[in-house]
Amino acid sequence: MKLVSTIRELRERIAADCPALVPTMGALHAGHGRLIETSVRENPTTAVSIFVNPTQFNNPADLANYPRTLDADLALCESLGADIVFAPSVDEMYPRPQRAFVDVERVTKHLEGAFRPGHFRGVATVVMKLFQIFEPRRAYFGEKDYQQLAMIRRMVEDLNVPVEIVGVPTVREPDGLALSSRNRLLDAEHRRAAPQLYRALLLAAENIAEGERDSARIKCAALASLADPLIRVDYLEIVDPVWVEPVSIVDGPVRIALAAYLGPVRLIDNVAV
Amino acid sequence: MKLVSTIRELRERIAADCPALVPTMGALHAGHGRLIETSVRENPTTAVSIFVNPTQFNNPADLANYPRTLDADLALCESLGADIVFAPSVDEMYPRPQRAFVDVERVTKHLEGAFRPGHFRGVATVVMKLFQIFEPRRAYFGEKDYQQLAMIRRMVEDLNVPVEIVGVPTVREPDGLALSSRNRLLDAEHRRAAPQLYRALLLAAENIAEGERDSARIKCAALASLADPLIRVDYLEIVDPVWVEPVSIVDGPVRIALAAYLGPVRLIDNVAV
Repeated sequence: MKLVSTIRELRERIAADCPALVPTMGALHAGHGRLIETSVRENPTTAVSIFVNPTQFNNPADLANYPRTLDADLALCESLGADIVFAPSVDEMYPRPQRAFVDVERVTKHLEGAFRPGHFRGVATVVMKLFQIFEPRRAYFGEKDYQQLAMIRRMVEDLNVPVEIVGVPTVREPDGLALSSRNRLLDAEHRRAAPQLYRALLLAAENIAEGERDSARIKCAALASLADPLIRVDYLEIVDPVWVEPVSIVDGPVRIALAAYLGPVRLIDNVAV
Repeated sequence: MKLVSTIRELRERIAADCPALVPTMGALHAGHGRLIETSVRENPTTAVSIFVNPTQFNNPADLANYPRTLDADLALCESLGADIVFAPSVDEMYPRPQRAFVDVERVTKHLEGAFRPGHFRGVATVVMKLFQIFEPRRAYFGEKDYQQLAMIRRMVEDLNVPVEIVGVPTVREPDGLALSSRNRLLDAEHRRAAPQLYRALLLAAENIAEGERDSARIKCAALASLADPLIRVDYLEIVDPVWVEPVSIVDGPVRIALAAYLGPVRLIDNVAV
C-alpha cells in the first residue's frame, strides 16, 4: 500500500488504472472498513482518501475535536487490501481561498441542510474535487450519512460525472448504535444512552409496518421514546428516499432519519422502510 | 467527421482517446474557426460541442433570437478537420430539472456578472457538464468572452479539473468589430456603428500607453467617444486580468472591457493592456 500526500504524485501513480475511491475523513471504524472491503472485492484497485475537510464543518468546535488517528487508519487500510491512501494537507486541497463551489438544491433543504448551514456545499465541493483528482469509475459512501449519499447521487447525475455511486449499509455496534467517528467522543453515561437513537428509529419503522400512515403520529411516538435528559433531538423526520423531503403520509418507501446531541456530541442515524 | 447527439454514444466513441474540446453555442464564425484550427493543430483528436445552453440566457428574447445554423456549422467543422461534433438536444443535456450547479464567486461579481444575473452559473454548470462528458485534457475558449474565460480558469483550478484551458485571441472584422454570432442580428445602420466599440477600447488603451493612470479619466474619454444615439453602453471598465475586478489606478496589466446595446443586440468586447 502506498501513502500519497500531494495531488501531483497521486495523479502520476493513478494515471494507468483509475482506482475506485472510498472518500473518508479518517478516524476509521468498521463502517469505513465495510466500504473499503466492498471496494477491494469489486474493483482491481482501491484508493482511500483521508481528509478532514474544514469547509464542511459549520461548527468550529466540532472541527477542532474531530478525531484524527492516521497511524491506526493506515494500518486498517493496509489490512483490508487498499492500494493507495491519499492523505493531503489542508493547503494541498485548498492552496488558495476557494472560489468555486458545487451547490445541490432541493435534496439539501431539510434535515442536515436545515441544521448545518454551509455543510452540504462543503461536502459537494470537496467530493467533486476528489472526483476530479481521482477520476474514479466507482465511489463508495455509507448509508449512515443518508442525505449526503442522496445529494452525491444528484450531483453526479446532474453534472454528468462518470462515476458510479455505491451506497453501503450502516454498520452498528451490538447494541444498535450506528458506528461513527464521533462515538469515541461520548463519555460513558452518554454512550449508554446512545442506543436509544436507533431504538426510536426502529419503533417508528414498526409503527409503519403495523399500518400507521400518519407521519405526525409516528414521529410523536418515536420522540416520546427519546424523553431522556441526556438526549437533545435536533430532528426526527420521515422523508422520501430520493429528495429527502418530509412526507406527511407514508404511502411508499421512506427513510426515517434523526439527529441528536448527547452532551456536546451530535450523532445522526437513519433506517429504510 | 462524426456527428453525435447522445451522451451515451459520445462516451462510447471517445473512450479510447479523450479528444480536446471546443465548446460552442453554434452559429460558428471565423472566431470559432480559429479555436478549432488551433485545437486541430495541437491535439490528435478534436471535438466541437454545439449547444445553445438555455440556462445561461437571462433574457428569453436573446435565447429565442440566438442564431442557429447547424448545417453550416457542420460544414465548417468538417473543413477545419474536427473529428467529432456533439450537438445534443436540450433534453439530452437536462433530462430532469437541474438541481446541481457550479458557482464561481468573486471573478463573476462585476461586468457581465452584474448585468446578467444567473448567466455565469449557467455557463459554469454547462461547461462542467461538458468537461465531465468529454473528460478532455485541453479545452479552447475565445478571449472575446474574457470574463467567462477567467471564470473557467478559476473553476478548473479550484475544483481540480484535469484540463488545460487555452485562451485564443479575438478575431475581428477588417473594421475592428469583434466576431460574434450576434453580429448577424445587427441591421445595416447598427452594423455601421458597431466598430466604434473597438475604437473606444483602443482609445482607452492608447491613453494608458501615453501614461494616463487614472481609470475614471480613461473611462470618461472612452465613453465620450461612444456618444452615438445608436449605442447604449452597459459598462466600460478597466479590470485586473485575473479576478476581473475594476481598478481605480492602472499600475499593472489590465483588461479594458465593455458591453453595449446596438438596437436590440447586446455586444461585448475587450482588449489587453
